[in-house]
Amino acid sequence: MAKNVATKVLESHLAEGELIPGKEISLTIDHTLLQDATGTMAMLEFIAMGLPRVKVDLAAQYIDHNLLQTDYKNADDHAFLTSAAMKFGIHLSKPGNGVSHQVHLERFGVPGKTLLGADSHTPTAAGLSMLAIGAGGLDVALAMAGHSFSLPCPKIMGVKLTGKLPEWVSGKDVILEMLRRHTVKGGVGKIIEYYGPGVATLSVTDRATIGNMGAELGATSSIFPSDERTREFLVSQGRGECWSPLVADEGALYDEYDEIDLSSLQPLIACPSSPDNVVPVADVAGVKVDQVLVGSSVNSSFRDLMTVCRVLEGQRVAPGVSFHINPGSRQVLENVADQGGIVSLLMAGAIIHQSGCLGCIGMGQAPGTNQISLRTFPRNFPGRSGTKDDKVYLCSPETAAAAGIHGVITDPRRLGDIKSYPAVQNPERYLLDDSGIIYPLEETDNIEIITGPNIVSFPDFEPLPDNLSVKVVSVLGDNITTDHIMPAGNKVLPLRSNIPAISEHVFEQIDPDFPARARGFGNGAIIAGENYGQGSSREHAAIAPRYLGIRVKIAKSFARIHKANLVNFGILPLVFKDSADYGRFQAGEDFSIPDVRKQIKSGLSELRVFVGGVEIITLLDVSDRQRQELLAGGTLNFVKSGSKP
Amino acid sequence: MAKNVATKVLESHLAEGELIPGKEISLTIDHTLLQDATGTMAMLEFIAMGLPRVKVDLAAQYIDHNLLQTDYKNADDHAFLTSAAMKFGIHLSKPGNGVSHQVHLERFGVPGKTLLGADSHTPTAAGLSMLAIGAGGLDVALAMAGHSFSLPCPKIMGVKLTGKLPEWVSGKDVILEMLRRHTVKGGVGKIIEYYGPGVATLSVTDRATIGNMGAELGATSSIFPSDERTREFLVSQGRGECWSPLVADEGALYDEYDEIDLSSLQPLIACPSSPDNVVPVADVAGVKVDQVLVGSSVNSSFRDLMTVCRVLEGQRVAPGVSFHINPGSRQVLENVADQGGIVSLLMAGAIIHQSGCLGCIGMGQAPGTNQISLRTFPRNFPGRSGTKDDKVYLCSPETAAAAGIHGVITDPRRLGDIKSYPAVQNPERYLLDDSGIIYPLEETDNIEIITGPNIVSFPDFEPLPDNLSVKVVSVLGDNITTDHIMPAGNKVLPLRSNIPAISEHVFEQIDPDFPARARGFGNGAIIAGENYGQGSSREHAAIAPRYLGIRVKIAKSFARIHKANLVNFGILPLVFKDSADYGRFQAGEDFSIPDVRKQIKSGLSELRVFVGGVEIITLLDVSDRQRQELLAGGTLNFVKSGSKP
Repeated sequence: MAKNVATKVLESHLAEGELIPGKEISLTIDHTLLQDATGTMAMLEFIAMGLPRVKVDLAAQYIDHNLLQTDYKNADDHAFLTSAAMKFGIHLSKPGNGVSHQVHLERFGVPGKTLLGADSHTPTAAGLSMLAIGAGGLDVALAMAGHSFSLPCPKIMGVKLTGKLPEWVSGKDVILEMLRRHTVKGGVGKIIEYYGPGVATLSVTDRATIGNMGAELGATSSIFPSDERTREFLVSQGRGECWSPLVADEGALYDEYDEIDLSSLQPLIACPSSPDNVVPVADVAGVKVDQVLVGSSVNSSFRDLMTVCRVLEGQRVAPGVSFHINPGSRQVLENVADQGGIVSLLMAGAIIHQSGCLGCIGMGQAPGTNQISLRTFPRNFPGRSGTKDDKVYLCSPETAAAAGIHGVITDPRRLGDIKSYPAVQNPERYLLDDSGIIYPLEETDNIEIITGPNIVSFPDFEPLPDNLSVKVVSVLGDNITTDHIMPAGNKVLPLRSNIPAISEHVFEQIDPDFPARARGFGNGAIIAGENYGQGSSREHAAIAPRYLGIRVKIAKSFARIHKANLVNFGILPLVFKDSADYGRFQAGEDFSIPDVRKQIKSGLSELRVFVGGVEIITLLDVSDRQRQELLAGGTLNFVKSGSKP
Repeated sequence: MAKNVATKVLESHLAEGELIPGKEISLTIDHTLLQDATGTMAMLEFIAMGLPRVKVDLAAQYIDHNLLQTDYKNADDHAFLTSAAMKFGIHLSKPGNGVSHQVHLERFGVPGKTLLGADSHTPTAAGLSMLAIGAGGLDVALAMAGHSFSLPCPKIMGVKLTGKLPEWVSGKDVILEMLRRHTVKGGVGKIIEYYGPGVATLSVTDRATIGNMGAELGATSSIFPSDERTREFLVSQGRGECWSPLVADEGALYDEYDEIDLSSLQPLIACPSSPDNVVPVADVAGVKVDQVLVGSSVNSSFRDLMTVCRVLEGQRVAPGVSFHINPGSRQVLENVADQGGIVSLLMAGAIIHQSGCLGCIGMGQAPGTNQISLRTFPRNFPGRSGTKDDKVYLCSPETAAAAGIHGVITDPRRLGDIKSYPAVQNPERYLLDDSGIIYPLEETDNIEIITGPNIVSFPDFEPLPDNLSVKVVSVLGDNITTDHIMPAGNKVLPLRSNIPAISEHVFEQIDPDFPARARGFGNGAIIAGENYGQGSSREHAAIAPRYLGIRVKIAKSFARIHKANLVNFGILPLVFKDSADYGRFQAGEDFSIPDVRKQIKSGLSELRVFVGGVEIITLLDVSDRQRQELLAGGTLNFVKSGSKP
């Protein structure tokens, strides 16, 4: 039978299960990715497993999030992760070497391999034809320990690309078009595979942009074929030998279909405060802009930055605009510098920062009160910038540069009045530099792991009791993000290795009394609407509520990674059988799940819950393995008891 | 009579008084300098005076301190300062354009002029033969309003330079030698004038380094002659027309003398945690280094950074070292980029930051627990890095580069084994760029001043009562810095425009209960040892304690700027006549100054204080004008009452 690309990779990595959408499967993992915000906890979890060395082809630890170093904590985390990476045979990308996604693409990615990363934007590697999936830190730690990764088998959605992007339109506009069509829930349970004649017109870095923001669609992953453009990119990175072709068989089918004529696309922009709030740039042209940020997690490649350089060359950033560049990697910055781009950017008035996530994760670069910020980032969830009531727009580098020059949101095609489209291509041969990477050593017995005072070992969680009585701590609406649950930003991120401390920040922006209330209640519950836990993969959005006593969350639906994280840390992820039952729950009220252990052990998919004297039905859609983990109080308890996760 | 350079500038700017050391004089001010950490409050003070425009030849407002933007506050401050600068005819240097001292040197400094700056390192302009003095923000606001600046007439200390610096030794080593000889108190009450044949061997930027860290000697200012090297620098900046010669007359005398044979100097380093804890680098060679920072307030010029580029070219930063570059200005970075230096730095593994103060003021870049940090900065006071119990060394760019390569403190002369001394010279013609400067406008009526919610108007302070009864809040030792009194760093600096909020951080590192205790006591006092209030010029070290109720400080001696700040905000700066009386004071004890208004009005220099039933004598060494200000409860009250300050 003719197979698509996603199916080929799934089949070649299938450890358990059958490729039937919705059924649990288990995949062999080739590469793992940790960054420092999720990585300190994941590394502590890996250490807890007691292995001498990772058991994957390639494990990478990036330091790209916590770069501000406003006190000892960031530097302590860097020292901890560096020493642990060296100890366990993990590639270490030093602070300033770049954003994990860009660096993995440049230096490590291999077509057709699987990559599991503790970062929701891990699917950036789709650009290099990897099946790259974001997951909780514990899942990645388990993969590093050689375990396969379990997930519900996704559907494959085929998106046929035809035509060729017009001038001043780039990869970002393709994914914004996908978000306009499908919303932040449209990709849930799916791998989005791009195919068709338009694919060959897109560079690997434009493909990576599309893969990166597949996370915003809620997709399990995205994937592109490995073709001549893929080979070119690997050759330009001095890694031509890593290339192999990977294309869909003639006549391959998909579970769902969509089609985009690239030629018909126009510049798009996501308005505050959701990545799917997309309109043509022309519709909001003229809005005054205070801040422009280019780079970070997405649109930080050579092509992206050099496009901005060429547009700004000989121009001036408008007086009222603060224009920032966050290079995706040291390599990108070196190649831009090598081609004279740095001087163009500086002379135009731009500010160039070290390579890293920075404002993309609220690590500095917060806009002022009532200021408008245009960013080439993947996300604009409320408050993620570090400023409450922020007004963040997401757009392409071309649109960002146009706003920088004109001081207002501007359709980049208007730049055609002052210069022709630069049509920047990635270099045929990058200037290469691995000075920021520490490669694994053979002999690591003498390496000591360095732990500062903010690195606190993982808390003990109790197994699930026979009967569960809980009090509702909060009743929440639809589309609650992991940024709402567990904020990031400069103040909170340094606490990622310290569960007791970080727990005090749960729901800080929308419900600052939550931690005290939850602690006061003992066993607690959260009630929520649709798509609960979308956004970043951060497992702290499960660990910290669990630390505060949350034992169950009942929602209309869950985002995939968050649901897996809830199971991993022993919180029951229940879904209303009848959504109308949502209205029965009030904050402060008690409810109970009698015989909860028995109900779960029995394998029932329907769990009886008693609230206000009424019995309602909730659904527990988890695998047998996950049932065991829930009973144990979480996956680490389950693994510690000697069971295979 | 033959005159030295300092006397010539003092004479040509003398508004009141006579040039008799120790007597109060008043100087006409040509240029003023504000940065954003001191500038928000100074600007609020200037606004309170109700003038439509500044009344100096050139006023400059720099945004170089609060660059992290971890929430809305920094960006709000930037918007406030930008709008106010545009409103009042002030030159505005945007975020990312560079450190005030370096930019003033490049774009604005004029030999023979006076510069008053709300930053203790203002004397960097000594390198351009300006008489540049650090002062409190209110003093600078008054100068912006056209008032002359009063100070005790300093002595002139002549330091004769002979010979020529050896290879691998630079300006930093000259000022470290001065600190080794004279300590952090050695310059108090003095202008340090460099003369002799060695001067011509030093570039303007090396002279600026020496002038900058004259602040660490406690000096009122430093000054160099304006000679052919000065002319060359101004020509290289496209400002040759600003040059005029200014040299000491043949046979000019000084109040004090010292002499340095430049040829005899070796690489020096200031050990933790004072800039005068100086030893030869060779004495501490081999100490493991975790972090190296080059740039910021001092040693951030083209010569400094390019020297590091040339040393690192083709080398690698040692694996355990985090190596950072903070360019002094956008211009410096552009010129380094233009000569290919950026690629060399990046390929060696260095991290390049935006131009600004950054770690120099504890705004990020904090070292980890127990880590050793080598910095080319001017200060290493305890905790200033943002990390408690930090271990910060101060050294030249040459020494910093050597440590970066070898991973341990290394005499830079050992670099001679791998390459010859690069002997970098500043460019004959800089690549020029004022994209980061907003020049004053003629018409400013339409400009609205933007104030965010963190910009809080200046508090009202009461006049001095007839009798003063106070309780001792703290008894402190010698050499307490303004960093101890009013910490800087990422957490506190954003509160500089908000006195109620920033007051909660007074003495945070050494006595976190101080604010609560002081508020509980009502009228309070601080007792201290020698050189109280050394370091940064920050007037918040006076305003915030005053806000907490501090009405009097009795010390063995005061640093000059802090003493002036105390008077400005209505705190009595008393000195023990007999230092032994220091021992009579206990924390929590009451003491009184009966008839304090009468005693001060009478012009007595000896004030009677009653403590524990005993009368002791304290000295109030202030001018008649300052007595009026103290009676009024501070200078702003005095000015508001219509009196000339």
